[in-house]
Amino acid sequence: MFEEQTTQEAAENGTADASRADQELADLKDKYLRLAAEFENYKRRTTKERADLFKSANQELMMVLLPVLDDFERARQHTQTTDDANMVRESIDIIYGKLTKALQQKGLQTMETKGGAFDPELHEAITQIPAPSEDLKGKVVDEVEKGYYLGDKVIRHAKVVLGQ
Amino acid sequence: MFEEQTTQEAAENGTADASRADQELADLKDKYLRLAAEFENYKRRTTKERADLFKSANQELMMVLLPVLDDFERARQHTQTTDDANMVRESIDIIYGKLTKALQQKGLQTMETKGGAFDPELHEAITQIPAPSEDLKGKVVDEVEKGYYLGDKVIRHAKVVLGQ
Repeated sequence: MFEEQTTQEAAENGTADASRADQELADLKDKYLRLAAEFENYKRRTTKERADLFKSANQELMMVLLPVLDDFERARQHTQTTDDANMVRESIDIIYGKLTKALQQKGLQTMETKGGAFDPELHEAITQIPAPSEDLKGKVVDEVEKGYYLGDKVIRHAKVVLGQ
Repeated sequence: MFEEQTTQEAAENGTADASRADQELADLKDKYLRLAAEFENYKRRTTKERADLFKSANQELMMVLLPVLDDFERARQHTQTTDDANMVRESIDIIYGKLTKALQQKGLQTMETKGGAFDPELHEAITQIPAPSEDLKGKVVDEVEKGYYLGDKVIRHAKVVLGQ
C-alpha cells in the first residue's frame, strides 16, 4: 500500500510536471513566434528606411544646390548680351561663392596642402621636382588638383608636386 | 496488480513526458536566446549602417560635383584678365552644362510647366493674370521659378503664373 501510494504520487507528480512543462513550452513557443515576427517586421522596416534614407540624404544636398542653379540661370540670362567682360566675370564669382558655400554647409572642406609635409593619407604625388630650398625637401611644392574632406573623411586626395 | 501496473506505467509515462518536455523546453529556450541575440546584432549593425549610409549618400553626390568645382576654378583663372565677354560667357555655359549634367545623373529632373494645366501637386501659383487666350484659362502662363523632381518625387514646386 505504501509502495502503491508512492507510485501513485509519482504518477501524479510526473503528470503535474509534464503539464507544467507543457504550459511553459507553449508560452515559450508563443514568445518565440512573437520575437521572430518582430524581427521580420524590423528587417522589412529597416530595408525600406534604408532606401528612403539614401534618397533623402541626396535630397538635402540637392535642395541646397537648387538656389545655385537658379542663380546660374539668372546670371546667364542677365549677361546674355553684355560686352562687359568684368560683369560676366563678376557673375561667375558670385555663383562660385554660392556653390562652394552650399557644399561647405553640407560638410565639404578643402584640403590645405602647399608647403606642408607630404602625407600619403592625404596626398597623391603625381610628380617630384628638386626642392627649391632645403626646407622644402619632402614637402608639397605645388598642388595640381585640390583634395577634399567630407566631414572628417578624405573623399579626394590632393594631387601634388613633391619636393625632393 | 493490474492497477498497480497501470499506476506504475502512468508514473513512468508521466516522468518520460516530463523529461521529453524538459528537453524540448531547453531546446526552445536555446533557440529563443539565439534569435534574440541575432536580433540584437542586426539592430546594432543596421544602426551603424544607417549612419554610414547617410554619409555615403551625400558623398556620391559630392563626388560628381568635385569635377564641376575644378572646372569652375579653372574657368575663373582662365578668364581672369580677358576683355572678351564672349569668352567668359562661354565658360559659364560650359560649367552650367557640367553642373546640370552631374545633377541629372544623380536623379534631378526639371519640371516642364509652361502651357500645361495647373496642378497643385506640382505648381505653386504665385500670381494670376487674365489668360491671354481662351485655351490658356486654368493653364500655366509663365514660370517664375523652376520646379524639380528627384527621381519621381517633387522636391520643389514650380512657382508659376496662372491664367484665369
